[in-house]
Amino acid sequence: MTEITSPKTALVVSAHSADFVWRAGGAIALHQQQGYQVHVVCLSFGERGESAKLWRKGNMTEEKVKTARRAEALAAADILGASIEFFDMSDYPLRADKEALFRLADVYRRVQPHFVLTHSLHDPYNYDHPLANNLAQEARIIAQAEGYRPGEKIVGAPPVYCFEPHQPEQCSWKPDVLLDITPVWDKKYAAIQCMAGQEHLWEYYTRVAQQRGVQAKRNVGITSTRDIIYGEGYQSIFPRVTEDLA
Amino acid sequence: MTEITSPKTALVVSAHSADFVWRAGGAIALHQQQGYQVHVVCLSFGERGESAKLWRKGNMTEEKVKTARRAEALAAADILGASIEFFDMSDYPLRADKEALFRLADVYRRVQPHFVLTHSLHDPYNYDHPLANNLAQEARIIAQAEGYRPGEKIVGAPPVYCFEPHQPEQCSWKPDVLLDITPVWDKKYAAIQCMAGQEHLWEYYTRVAQQRGVQAKRNVGITSTRDIIYGEGYQSIFPRVTEDLA
Amino acid sequence: MTEITSPKTALVVSAHSADFVWRAGGAIALHQQQGYQVHVVCLSFGERGESAKLWRKGNMTEEKVKTARRAEALAAADILGASIEFFDMSDYPLRADKEALFRLADVYRRVQPHFVLTHSLHDPYNYDHPLANNLAQEARIIAQAEGYRPGEKIVGAPPVYCFEPHQPEQCSWKPDVLLDITPVWDKKYAAIQCMAGQEHLWEYYTRVAQQRGVQAKRNVGITSTRDIIYGEGYQSIFPRVTEDLA
Amino acid sequence: MTEITSPKTALVVSAHSADFVWRAGGAIALHQQQGYQVHVVCLSFGERGESAKLWRKGNMTEEKVKTARRAEALAAADILGASIEFFDMSDYPLRADKEALFRLADVYRRVQPHFVLTHSLHDPYNYDHPLANNLAQEARIIAQAEGYRPGEKIVGAPPVYCFEPHQPEQCSWKPDVLLDITPVWDKKYAAIQCMAGQEHLWEYYTRVAQQRGVQAKRNVGITSTRDIIYGEGYQSIFPRVTEDLA
Amino acid sequence: MTEITSPKTALVVSAHSADFVWRAGGAIALHQQQGYQVHVVCLSFGERGESAKLWRKGNMTEEKVKTARRAEALAAADILGASIEFFDMSDYPLRADKEALFRLADVYRRVQPHFVLTHSLHDPYNYDHPLANNLAQEARIIAQAEGYRPGEKIVGAPPVYCFEPHQPEQCSWKPDVLLDITPVWDKKYAAIQCMAGQEHLWEYYTRVAQQRGVQAKRNVGITSTRDIIYGEGYQSIFPRVTEDLA
Amino acid sequence: MTEITSPKTALVVSAHSADFVWRAGGAIALHQQQGYQVHVVCLSFGERGESAKLWRKGNMTEEKVKTARRAEALAAADILGASIEFFDMSDYPLRADKEALFRLADVYRRVQPHFVLTHSLHDPYNYDHPLANNLAQEARIIAQAEGYRPGEKIVGAPPVYCFEPHQPEQCSWKPDVLLDITPVWDKKYAAIQCMAGQEHLWEYYTRVAQQRGVQAKRNVGITSTRDIIYGEGYQSIFPRVTEDLA
Repeated sequence: MTEITSPKTALVVSAHSADFVWRAGGAIALHQQQGYQVHVVCLSFGERGESAKLWRKGNMTEEKVKTARRAEALAAADILGASIEFFDMSDYPLRADKEALFRLADVYRRVQPHFVLTHSLHDPYNYDHPLANNLAQEARIIAQAEGYRPGEKIVGAPPVYCFEPHQPEQCSWKPDVLLDITPVWDKKYAAIQCMAGQEHLWEYYTRVAQQRGVQAKRNVGITSTRDIIYGEGYQSIFPRVTEDLA
Repeated sequence: MTEITSPKTALVVSAHSADFVWRAGGAIALHQQQGYQVHVVCLSFGERGESAKLWRKGNMTEEKVKTARRAEALAAADILGASIEFFDMSDYPLRADKEALFRLADVYRRVQPHFVLTHSLHDPYNYDHPLANNLAQEARIIAQAEGYRPGEKIVGAPPVYCFEPHQPEQCSWKPDVLLDITPVWDKKYAAIQCMAGQEHLWEYYTRVAQQRGVQAKRNVGITSTRDIIYGEGYQSIFPRVTEDLA
Repeated sequence: MTEITSPKTALVVSAHSADFVWRAGGAIALHQQQGYQVHVVCLSFGERGESAKLWRKGNMTEEKVKTARRAEALAAADILGASIEFFDMSDYPLRADKEALFRLADVYRRVQPHFVLTHSLHDPYNYDHPLANNLAQEARIIAQAEGYRPGEKIVGAPPVYCFEPHQPEQCSWKPDVLLDITPVWDKKYAAIQCMAGQEHLWEYYTRVAQQRGVQAKRNVGITSTRDIIYGEGYQSIFPRVTEDLA
Repeated sequence: MTEITSPKTALVVSAHSADFVWRAGGAIALHQQQGYQVHVVCLSFGERGESAKLWRKGNMTEEKVKTARRAEALAAADILGASIEFFDMSDYPLRADKEALFRLADVYRRVQPHFVLTHSLHDPYNYDHPLANNLAQEARIIAQAEGYRPGEKIVGAPPVYCFEPHQPEQCSWKPDVLLDITPVWDKKYAAIQCMAGQEHLWEYYTRVAQQRGVQAKRNVGITSTRDIIYGEGYQSIFPRVTEDLA
Repeated sequence: MTEITSPKTALVVSAHSADFVWRAGGAIALHQQQGYQVHVVCLSFGERGESAKLWRKGNMTEEKVKTARRAEALAAADILGASIEFFDMSDYPLRADKEALFRLADVYRRVQPHFVLTHSLHDPYNYDHPLANNLAQEARIIAQAEGYRPGEKIVGAPPVYCFEPHQPEQCSWKPDVLLDITPVWDKKYAAIQCMAGQEHLWEYYTRVAQQRGVQAKRNVGITSTRDIIYGEGYQSIFPRVTEDLA
Repeated sequence: MTEITSPKTALVVSAHSADFVWRAGGAIALHQQQGYQVHVVCLSFGERGESAKLWRKGNMTEEKVKTARRAEALAAADILGASIEFFDMSDYPLRADKEALFRLADVYRRVQPHFVLTHSLHDPYNYDHPLANNLAQEARIIAQAEGYRPGEKIVGAPPVYCFEPHQPEQCSWKPDVLLDITPVWDKKYAAIQCMAGQEHLWEYYTRVAQQRGVQAKRNVGITSTRDIIYGEGYQSIFPRVTEDLA
């Protein structure tokens, strides 16, 4: 009974406060439309490493940058239909101690996600991204352990997907899932436009979506009448369990 | 209209006449139950390399071995609910010329499969297996080409899955799909028992199914009431296109 | 003396008659501008596998398709400033015997290329492409051998670069060279437009060039005033020999 | 009974007539000293691709080159204590049909090797080498099949080792076995000196042996009094079966 | 002289207190029979992450779980004939500071192992396991350094083997050594039965042993009369130094 | 203007005080000759792990070892023409906290390197080396961030090259750049001879240079009159941006 009434959920772990928009905005909006409750954790605001435009304005402090970045992320999450929280762990470098690990494990316990989205395993251009992946994966394992906060409801084995890094081949990232985000592209692009400080990336990630859309179309098994224009690629960490191979 | 009424189909390309049973018997029976028409192509009978027990009986010829192997494969396909045909291309070594390639491409055109099952990409213990994979993949590409037998209905982009080789790690085979075959295990084991000449493998592949079953259970996202006991592992060649990540 | 006056040369080995345009058109035009003589070998016309639009017109034969494709390729080569020849080896499947190998080795001997461009090592969507790579590489080795047509001038060790496949990550292709093609983009796009039969790819490869352009900009060592807008990615097969690491 | 009296044996499959000396001369001499009968198969004489010095002499024919190379190989095998035979399959390119495969399978059956040495799996500088590996591995599989020349004694599962290519890292070759050849270095160097046509390689392969010797010393578990000065590296294809992990 | 009389030794580094049983119980018992002194270090008791059954009993504390797990491990070590010590470093997550590193390095110095067994390099299901591997490898390197506790006897270069993780392919674990543990299977299974809290794994690891046994049989070079029924797989980190390739 | 007159610079990050000599001495001397200012950072003196000979002398302390090693490194840097500084972070194990990271980032800001040399990504024999690589890469990223010490001149995207580890294949290190160091070999060998405590490595690294020299010669595109005798190999982390592929 409970199975039927409790909504499906998803968790997104984002190193900096804009990553979830560029890389997973389509998945968030799409699943929200399907009735999922999607929750985003931003480990940092990207205040040092991903706010160049703000810093170049001059007369800036870390607090001011963080305030601006928080506002952008909130606006984007709102458009995508996701709840969001900020761990404010600092960036460049991001570092996670046991506290942060347990804090994220507690989010897993609370959210009980049906799937998890986070960064790629490798990224020579950005060391915070793989660290976020590492933290997201280890927190999931902690949350699965009966002996961690005994008595609480443990987490199952939700699939983990790595979203697309900026230079995919250099990160040894290979998508094995192509998500059709055509129906929600407008929302994703609206969320992207919240990122005033990184306008140079708007068209870059529009093109990424178009290329993944073309590729998705190429990989559809049996020709359908549906037209795919925009896509997002994901690399899964674990094997999926299924009963239908088509 | 036709789209709605025509049944779903699948194609299995097996290097030797028993491979489809050990490696994909569960998938065949499961999809047959779901209403798929599954068609098996056996490239050879495995008459030289996989019929040791028959040869040790003495007083044997290749023709006799092939006859015995064909009968076993027919019986197994019947139990699993698949149609079957034999290319009789010889084994140890299997070799494919353009004729064989086009013959298989024609099967693709006829069957219009929703998915394809075949051997692993590598196998240092068995050179016929990767060759079968190569042939299955190239024939699929030929069948997709408008310029091959122009006017015929071309094939879409059905996913291709590599089934489990005998020593998976040595073949660099890594399953990214775990299929729950518990409901059809009885059928698979019955089909396995048709392989009188390879009795030593019956228990080996029963244990493979049990191990993959335990692993499937471990990878289910949200705990379900369903119990998985037997499984089959597959490695996919292409990214899948989806609208739901859970 | 001859060393000084003879021009630099390059060789491009293209499986089908349009590949050199999408994948290496920028490199060809750029080096042509720098004084290189660039020579293109088209192994086939892509008459079966890459001429869908022509076939769909109806009332078509292989000869007609080849004629149309040849004209397009000639026009594109002309715009890019390259000489071109056609081996007409058939496609889907491309197959190379010793004849073809020696024919291509003879081109190496004649052209004496300073570098070579060809397809990627792997491509699960297109088996002709890796075969072209294999042929280009083996022919280079034959052309280096003193015992092949003894007395002729052998070839040195020109670097070989693999150009970008259609779905790079699925082909395990990783660019280690990013070429700035901004100055010749107009020529490349003009050449692309010669490919009337594959209009759906024009914008796809424009976006590819834009993405590689952004990435090139990101990987420039010391900020320069020069602006990179369009790029091409290449994966090299051999280590390069240098005296300057910057 | 026969088990006890029949000597241990080894098989070396060499693409060109000098490869077995540079790459496996130490292993051959060492095992010969230990009582093994070592048999070498040279697939070609390397007459086209590995006899540059001879061709540069002028007034040369393929037959003359082959005669010279055969004499060198015979002299080297004699020093190392191995028997040798020549398949004379041509080089640059080496090509193997079913005949060649069965001919080599028959050598396996005759020799019944306890281990096999051959080339690396990859070599972008030399396409004959991986082809020799491929042939050696597939012939081994044929020789294991009961249905190949039924009635003959089949071959077991002798380990296969890939010997060191000229530029190891470029060939993705990674040694997991380091053989101490110090006691037989004199023999190996004497055999190397038979290769009059490739004098430039004598010191190169002496240094290879010294480097592998230093590395072997570094990897010895418990310090022994024995001094290792010369080594050969090998990469194994199959897992080894053992009862002692030290 | 001392060399002759001092016994051979081995070291096993186990993340949780039961890992050494499932994964290396056969190797321990086998080498103990051969006269080795085998020492096990358990970094944690697995009290949080690998004691689900105990926690589900209710009325449990970490101390109670640890006491129960310690008793099981002691009983298992006793059956296998190994000495054992517990670092009690906590699990889920396991974390190692310099103290822990030096403590383990001191064990290396004391034990002077002829070989080392520990976890796999990767495991997406269990982050404690790779961390244990990392600690075991780095401690070995510290123990080799003359400048660490100068004056003490340093350690040689004992081979390190990674034992089998729960889902081998997902951990990129590939066995290159197959150990025949048939003679000691009874002991291993008796030790396994000490793990009352993980009864669901008993049959899983029995089947693992049977599969590795079949595979070992398949990889034996020359058919022997000996029958292999149970095996354990290992992946080695370093090349082995040898004088015999058979 | 400044661009024109300010000299080119390079940064070398060395885990222990001798690594930069064996592994990058040629690159340092060569670029110094070309007008580069090369700066070396030694993270530790290698006092514990790479000073065996000194410790074996007896009557030694860490301070004495460090003093001796510092003197050797200064002498070598002087010969090579590089400036040098010592972080004195301890070795075996090397550990880096945020302090160390920022200290190195500040060096990047000060030096503004045109390229960076450091250790390989992996080394199972030496855990300090990959840690030095990791630190060098992350510090580069910090130094690129506008938000790190806002107002300072940020760093561009200098290429990073991994120099050759002691056992290259075991470290999964593959050179994609071969540097001709023939003109400065005398300097490198003179610098090597400053390392009195590691005399056993002098000839080892001479042979390394000779092997890489031969390989460089093999990979030169068009035969030049220049003779390459000594080389150094490097593996690059990032794609290079270029306008000429020859």
